[in-house]
Amino acid sequence: MDRILIVGLGLIGGSYAEGLTRAGFEVGAVTRSRSSIDYALQKGIISSGTTGLDPDYLGRWDVVVFSLYPHIFRQWVRENQQWLRSGAILTDVTGVKSRIVPEIQGMLRPDLEFVPAHPMAGREVYGVQNSNADIFKGANFILTPTERNSEQAIGRIEAIARHLGFRKISRLSPEKHDEMIGFLSQLTHCIAVTLMDCKESHHMVDYTGDSFRDLTRIARINEDMWTELFLENKAELLEQMDLFAGKFKELRDALEQEDSEKMKQMMRLSTERRSYFDK
Amino acid sequence: MDRILIVGLGLIGGSYAEGLTRAGFEVGAVTRSRSSIDYALQKGIISSGTTGLDPDYLGRWDVVVFSLYPHIFRQWVRENQQWLRSGAILTDVTGVKSRIVPEIQGMLRPDLEFVPAHPMAGREVYGVQNSNADIFKGANFILTPTERNSEQAIGRIEAIARHLGFRKISRLSPEKHDEMIGFLSQLTHCIAVTLMDCKESHHMVDYTGDSFRDLTRIARINEDMWTELFLENKAELLEQMDLFAGKFKELRDALEQEDSEKMKQMMRLSTERRSYFDK
Repeated sequence: MDRILIVGLGLIGGSYAEGLTRAGFEVGAVTRSRSSIDYALQKGIISSGTTGLDPDYLGRWDVVVFSLYPHIFRQWVRENQQWLRSGAILTDVTGVKSRIVPEIQGMLRPDLEFVPAHPMAGREVYGVQNSNADIFKGANFILTPTERNSEQAIGRIEAIARHLGFRKISRLSPEKHDEMIGFLSQLTHCIAVTLMDCKESHHMVDYTGDSFRDLTRIARINEDMWTELFLENKAELLEQMDLFAGKFKELRDALEQEDSEKMKQMMRLSTERRSYFDK
Repeated sequence: MDRILIVGLGLIGGSYAEGLTRAGFEVGAVTRSRSSIDYALQKGIISSGTTGLDPDYLGRWDVVVFSLYPHIFRQWVRENQQWLRSGAILTDVTGVKSRIVPEIQGMLRPDLEFVPAHPMAGREVYGVQNSNADIFKGANFILTPTERNSEQAIGRIEAIARHLGFRKISRLSPEKHDEMIGFLSQLTHCIAVTLMDCKESHHMVDYTGDSFRDLTRIARINEDMWTELFLENKAELLEQMDLFAGKFKELRDALEQEDSEKMKQMMRLSTERRSYFDK
């Protein structure tokens, strides 16, 4: 079985580590914080780990999973790929793909391969201390391979995703991925943040139903990570935001004009489409 | 104990009936559909019920709960209040208040009293067959009394809310209620409907995470009821929609200008405020 190194032991990296150790893989970790390594060793979700960059240690792994902010991921590969073993497969969990995939694949040694991936799972808490491999159970997993990838390497990352319990493993082009995620994930985070920013709402806790709670769950957000992800996908996200704003204005104008039939038509469409997403 | 009549035996009316029967009240029902009465009798959540308007039956009740569309509620009271017993208390579950409360209180016989209320609970399914008194457990309950109400009558409706298991019972003016609900509930439904209407999304089921699912749960919507509720609260809802659209544009423009600090500031604010709503 592959020996797997996690680079960046936060919530997602830690959840990978836990799930893969459970599945019988040998899992190591490199991360900046000593306490994260200590926690993961003590919990038994990694068998080794380091905060340094020991060439011998980095050279031991068949698969390297990057769970880092995009700019740190780029820098890490640029500076440290020299220590990875020949034939190693790199993969990641980065939420945007169009820019980073050609960059990483373009700078990589010819004897290494990068298989880009995006696990569609997360929580509103951070750090290895909150990691939990159960977040992947039943979730979606997206691969965004390019013509530089081999079926064999893609297959090894798919196998890892199956070991982690993902429900559906799909492939998209990096561009299609970013359009999709711009709509499904980034736009929804923009909406939640906006809604929460509209008003000082402390006193509303006593009046709210569940709908406001559900729509703002993801308004609890890591501002550094998401700002970077939004900027990495700027053109696409702007397009999705403008699409939403335009539709929202249609509903607003229908209300202003008391156009009941238009309002009902929009609601019938949303009701029909939402049924696809019932679990 | 009060004998309680439910007028309109749908999801909310049926859930009231179930909870109040469990709590030991005698509960009857008037509704249009014979099968709803039969179902409720068979389940034991009412002890009697009728689809007609028998004056003797209508004159038997101490408290009458209206769970109807606003326009049907108005019409019912206009035509049938003559049959209610002297001293009966009327209450409701209507989602908007500013227009309907003075209308109902203004047309009421002097020996009847209307205590307006709004239970903040619901589901995306309809009908007495889906009713379940557990939806009220831990939920909020808002009363919107006016100077026409007596403390004694308000107290009796509060007691009923406590029997149903509501967590927090509050009072707001009808106007404040409609502003609050325009923001917390109607705006969120507008957002969910809009988001679902943006794209044909069937194929996205394989790519989505939970955030899109959470934000669109309430896009499954009863178009007749919600269109009526939106129109009843038109001015207030337009104001809330414009507030949201303006804030959304701020975030959009910050992204376009790559103003990271502004984006992060909006996210820090949303993170801080969302913590109020943790259960």
